[in-house]
Amino acid sequence: MTHKIAILGASGYTGAELVRLIATHPGLEIAALSANSKAGQTMAQAFPHLRHLDLPTLVTIDEIDFSGIDLCFCALPHKTSQEVIAALPTDLKIVDLSADFRLRDPDAYEKWYGNAHAAVEMQKEAVYGLTEFYRDAIRGARLVAGTGCNAATGQYILRPLIQAGVIDLDEIILDLKCGVSGAGRSLKENLLHAELSEGYHAYALGGTHRHLGEFDQEFSEIAGRDVRIQFTPHLIPANRGILATGYVKGEAKAVYETLFNTYADEPFIEVLPYGEGPSTRHVRGSNFCHIGVVADRIDGRAIVVAALDNLCKGSSGQALQNANLMLGIDETTGLMLAPVFP
Amino acid sequence: MTHKIAILGASGYTGAELVRLIATHPGLEIAALSANSKAGQTMAQAFPHLRHLDLPTLVTIDEIDFSGIDLCFCALPHKTSQEVIAALPTDLKIVDLSADFRLRDPDAYEKWYGNAHAAVEMQKEAVYGLTEFYRDAIRGARLVAGTGCNAATGQYILRPLIQAGVIDLDEIILDLKCGVSGAGRSLKENLLHAELSEGYHAYALGGTHRHLGEFDQEFSEIAGRDVRIQFTPHLIPANRGILATGYVKGEAKAVYETLFNTYADEPFIEVLPYGEGPSTRHVRGSNFCHIGVVADRIDGRAIVVAALDNLCKGSSGQALQNANLMLGIDETTGLMLAPVFP
Amino acid sequence: MTHKIAILGASGYTGAELVRLIATHPGLEIAALSANSKAGQTMAQAFPHLRHLDLPTLVTIDEIDFSGIDLCFCALPHKTSQEVIAALPTDLKIVDLSADFRLRDPDAYEKWYGNAHAAVEMQKEAVYGLTEFYRDAIRGARLVAGTGCNAATGQYILRPLIQAGVIDLDEIILDLKCGVSGAGRSLKENLLHAELSEGYHAYALGGTHRHLGEFDQEFSEIAGRDVRIQFTPHLIPANRGILATGYVKGEAKAVYETLFNTYADEPFIEVLPYGEGPSTRHVRGSNFCHIGVVADRIDGRAIVVAALDNLCKGSSGQALQNANLMLGIDETTGLMLAPVFP
Amino acid sequence: MTHKIAILGASGYTGAELVRLIATHPGLEIAALSANSKAGQTMAQAFPHLRHLDLPTLVTIDEIDFSGIDLCFCALPHKTSQEVIAALPTDLKIVDLSADFRLRDPDAYEKWYGNAHAAVEMQKEAVYGLTEFYRDAIRGARLVAGTGCNAATGQYILRPLIQAGVIDLDEIILDLKCGVSGAGRSLKENLLHAELSEGYHAYALGGTHRHLGEFDQEFSEIAGRDVRIQFTPHLIPANRGILATGYVKGEAKAVYETLFNTYADEPFIEVLPYGEGPSTRHVRGSNFCHIGVVADRIDGRAIVVAALDNLCKGSSGQALQNANLMLGIDETTGLMLAPVFP
Repeated sequence: MTHKIAILGASGYTGAELVRLIATHPGLEIAALSANSKAGQTMAQAFPHLRHLDLPTLVTIDEIDFSGIDLCFCALPHKTSQEVIAALPTDLKIVDLSADFRLRDPDAYEKWYGNAHAAVEMQKEAVYGLTEFYRDAIRGARLVAGTGCNAATGQYILRPLIQAGVIDLDEIILDLKCGVSGAGRSLKENLLHAELSEGYHAYALGGTHRHLGEFDQEFSEIAGRDVRIQFTPHLIPANRGILATGYVKGEAKAVYETLFNTYADEPFIEVLPYGEGPSTRHVRGSNFCHIGVVADRIDGRAIVVAALDNLCKGSSGQALQNANLMLGIDETTGLMLAPVFP
Repeated sequence: MTHKIAILGASGYTGAELVRLIATHPGLEIAALSANSKAGQTMAQAFPHLRHLDLPTLVTIDEIDFSGIDLCFCALPHKTSQEVIAALPTDLKIVDLSADFRLRDPDAYEKWYGNAHAAVEMQKEAVYGLTEFYRDAIRGARLVAGTGCNAATGQYILRPLIQAGVIDLDEIILDLKCGVSGAGRSLKENLLHAELSEGYHAYALGGTHRHLGEFDQEFSEIAGRDVRIQFTPHLIPANRGILATGYVKGEAKAVYETLFNTYADEPFIEVLPYGEGPSTRHVRGSNFCHIGVVADRIDGRAIVVAALDNLCKGSSGQALQNANLMLGIDETTGLMLAPVFP
Repeated sequence: MTHKIAILGASGYTGAELVRLIATHPGLEIAALSANSKAGQTMAQAFPHLRHLDLPTLVTIDEIDFSGIDLCFCALPHKTSQEVIAALPTDLKIVDLSADFRLRDPDAYEKWYGNAHAAVEMQKEAVYGLTEFYRDAIRGARLVAGTGCNAATGQYILRPLIQAGVIDLDEIILDLKCGVSGAGRSLKENLLHAELSEGYHAYALGGTHRHLGEFDQEFSEIAGRDVRIQFTPHLIPANRGILATGYVKGEAKAVYETLFNTYADEPFIEVLPYGEGPSTRHVRGSNFCHIGVVADRIDGRAIVVAALDNLCKGSSGQALQNANLMLGIDETTGLMLAPVFP
Repeated sequence: MTHKIAILGASGYTGAELVRLIATHPGLEIAALSANSKAGQTMAQAFPHLRHLDLPTLVTIDEIDFSGIDLCFCALPHKTSQEVIAALPTDLKIVDLSADFRLRDPDAYEKWYGNAHAAVEMQKEAVYGLTEFYRDAIRGARLVAGTGCNAATGQYILRPLIQAGVIDLDEIILDLKCGVSGAGRSLKENLLHAELSEGYHAYALGGTHRHLGEFDQEFSEIAGRDVRIQFTPHLIPANRGILATGYVKGEAKAVYETLFNTYADEPFIEVLPYGEGPSTRHVRGSNFCHIGVVADRIDGRAIVVAALDNLCKGSSGQALQNANLMLGIDETTGLMLAPVFP
């Protein structure tokens, strides 16, 4: 049986990544692709690497007949996404890749994103899309909110430790290094090759990155108390990849065992042998996340490192994993592609 | 039905690329992996990006029992390859990725590679692995010699034109730009990141690159006369990719039509709309080859450009495509992965 | 004695490169910097790498008092440049880095740039800025037109050969590979890091690149007849660098001797030992140009390769070299910086 | 007056960087260059980017007559360096770029480097080369030990804070991101372009990096008590650059003021406006270090970030700065080159 899907915002990187993944998925058929600014173009014009595929032409959202669509991926900018989704048929299954439905609290949303939410009721209905921790809810959900790519990476290493109570909740530092594609296909001077390719820097310094809203929401809920971490992202001259280096206070062995046990049966999360660290190059183009744990030379402190591909496991791969669950398809379908190295 | 395969030289880049491709191939099972210098290691140690796969441990070639193997990929250095292959069971199907069986003439081999060939009889038996042009012979072959990655790229644009007689045979220039992985995983100063990453240069200047042996052999045979092209490769700071820019004398429209018609039914060769050029970024990680044709401002001259991924279509993807044919499997199986962009 | 200079268009890459070079020049003082869209900002805001320098704040052109300025560099977009320069004091020495005064023939200008020239008289007055070949005229010039960066590279290898009559004028092919910074600091999708960094392609295929106007003008004048070359540029994922591979028909030894003798006394042009090729990495950040000559395996054909840094010798370094001449300063002042490698 | 200098180990990256810097230094003359494995080659063969310079041929150390040398730079591997230096004339001024004389305590040396020190007396004599903090001692020193590049970067942000007592000494985390050239010109698989260029990872996890020996020595001495920080370096796909992100507990404003005041008169250390962060791209190819301070969202915590070029300010630039002091030359001579961007 084949399910028909639509992708809104198909001319961005997460849209293209969805198409790439779905291209070898046996149970999904791409029935509609929207891209308002490039409507009328073929997907081969927007993304020549997909030219071998037989795909619908890019249209505006208005032109799509949703009656035959089983599930819709929304890869639109935040704020736009909530407006579009609010106007979609109310029985349509939706996987949203934007930030719009990640935060359950309207005030938190407004604090981090600067505007009042336009679909507060749907905000409550949405299920947070971190598959490994919301799997059952996602299976029954109508609207799933894909996590932030940085937020996913950080949670993979920190959630189990907070849950298990093996680390000090007031002393968590997350130093994150992310690739360029996370910023999307937007025309900004600081994203030009000539600006970026030979240097790197920290940004959103001091705890101002929006993905902190997700950390605060999720970690506090797990802990049953307010948890606020320190989080500094850095922009690295590589297209894909997130490497999150977590500094925690706790016994490294307990930290390792907690993570190892949590992910023992997970198809996409690989906990490396104790003492080894992961690399973004070894998950590139794939839905895998590699995690490593090392004891610091100072007793009682551990370093936990996670690597994933921001466009895949951090975004479109996660979205497809969730869509599989929502449609009753085996969760790993279309997602077992091996990383591309070198 | 599943066919058992072995990969000799699995710790190099083409070996790893074979494993990546075969990982999602429904009809092949990897039964043995050899890597003499890393024997005893797991594949995850040699290539951590493959750690999610359940693979045999790396062994020496001597340790492999070939009796249960249906087909063997040899991803060994040239010269070593001919010695190893000469000692393998004579009924074993073999796809060789080295240079050892590409040239049918022992003198030509010695001229380009500097040593006398150690398996002259097998040299005669081997079928040249450029799938689109040797498909029928490959189906029945026992030993297939994978083409050079540069040689494949150049032939995709030039073979049909020579065959059709639409270009001047004495005035062919091929200016080629190749990525770094083509040089393999070898410890050479000029392959270090710090040496390579911010510059580029021509090498093997003046017609000294070994892949010219293949061009000479194939083009002369097609033309029924001696054909010698000019060929200059350049090393570009990108890991994957070959871009071949061909300068030919002939009518651009005839050139275009010849190429368009030649590849009209080919699953992996895409001829772009007339006047457009390809990019290596749009075939990266895939088995596709994109070809473009443009008329020069000087009448009677055309520029023909091809782009492919040296590790995939230029080497391991081609090898798998040939193995599929040799095993009676649909030729495209395991090879329809979309390129990874960005 | 110190000369006061102004730089118009200081917020672009060639403007910043001028400031970098002039920073260690003992005879020049930067008296004014303009950047219309960033007027009011400090140079440290536009280019933080220059923050250690004591520089004038960016202003609009109107705000500059040119009465105390000895020489003005114009690093503005073409078309804008001719309008601005036409309005400057008529006794002000000017080095223009745009395309506006490179072509002496108004029709040729309109053909390649698509608009009628707005300062036809000045077009006649301007001296073409290829220092090594127009040195005497530049010394006495009021207005010097900096060459195109690709045009400079190609001319360094081809001019002496055309002049000396050692190559076939009807069979010249120039395959050029240029870095990203040549496209400037402009917000275009195809210049984003995520788009560019892992691939490369040919552009302006078929003889449509504007720098052909310069080749046609200069080569035809030298030859005393119409000369039209084939020219294909390629965009390479590196920030700085141009590598020009020239395919010519002529005796390689004669080609080599012609180039060697032409540049024997030039401070910035290095002809490598016969048979060696240059690399962009070895001229990066400097005003040097390296040239190599190799005989092809086909008798009577040679390959000539030149490498330079597009922002320096191809643009701002050349501009400073010319300014030195115009101001009676030693030509190499401020320009002997060694390349930065790795 | 010109001082004659020798560079031992001139065929490595720090040797080449010394030559690059000294090339425009008016007071130094390169009298001898050694490179045991490349003895007999010209510097242009080892480093073609220096071919425009008139330099002595590479020789073995034994071939050098040190009687006319005023100062010798040793850019040799650690362990070799101490053996070579122990055999040099005892009145020769020496700037050592290796790790051999950084640690004053022979036990600490053996702990971090694994071998007993072969020149314990000289170890005591050596002055630690962090110019801004050992300036007076360096002026009178005979043997100066260049700091580790990571160690220098970390100390620039942490020394003043420890000295001033404005941060908690038991809660210092240094997350560092360094470029590839820091690993030198060594033939290691993990330094190949194909391995490195598209990914990044943490290494020496858990406090095992040797530069911790320097941090321990210096910070403990300043504090008058044992200070041990957490330190995790990451390898980033860029050739030059170190970005050190320090997580400290203390009032951000006090942290900022301490750093601002400490470096107010330093020619090479630039403290950015409060709240801004530095980037490695803005110090590339230069001797500058940029420092930024930001308050975290959690009260009482600050993030301090430093950027410098590992080959220049982190190694060869620092060495030249120290040599200038030892020779009575103005400290900034030859070092005011502006960064190269883009």
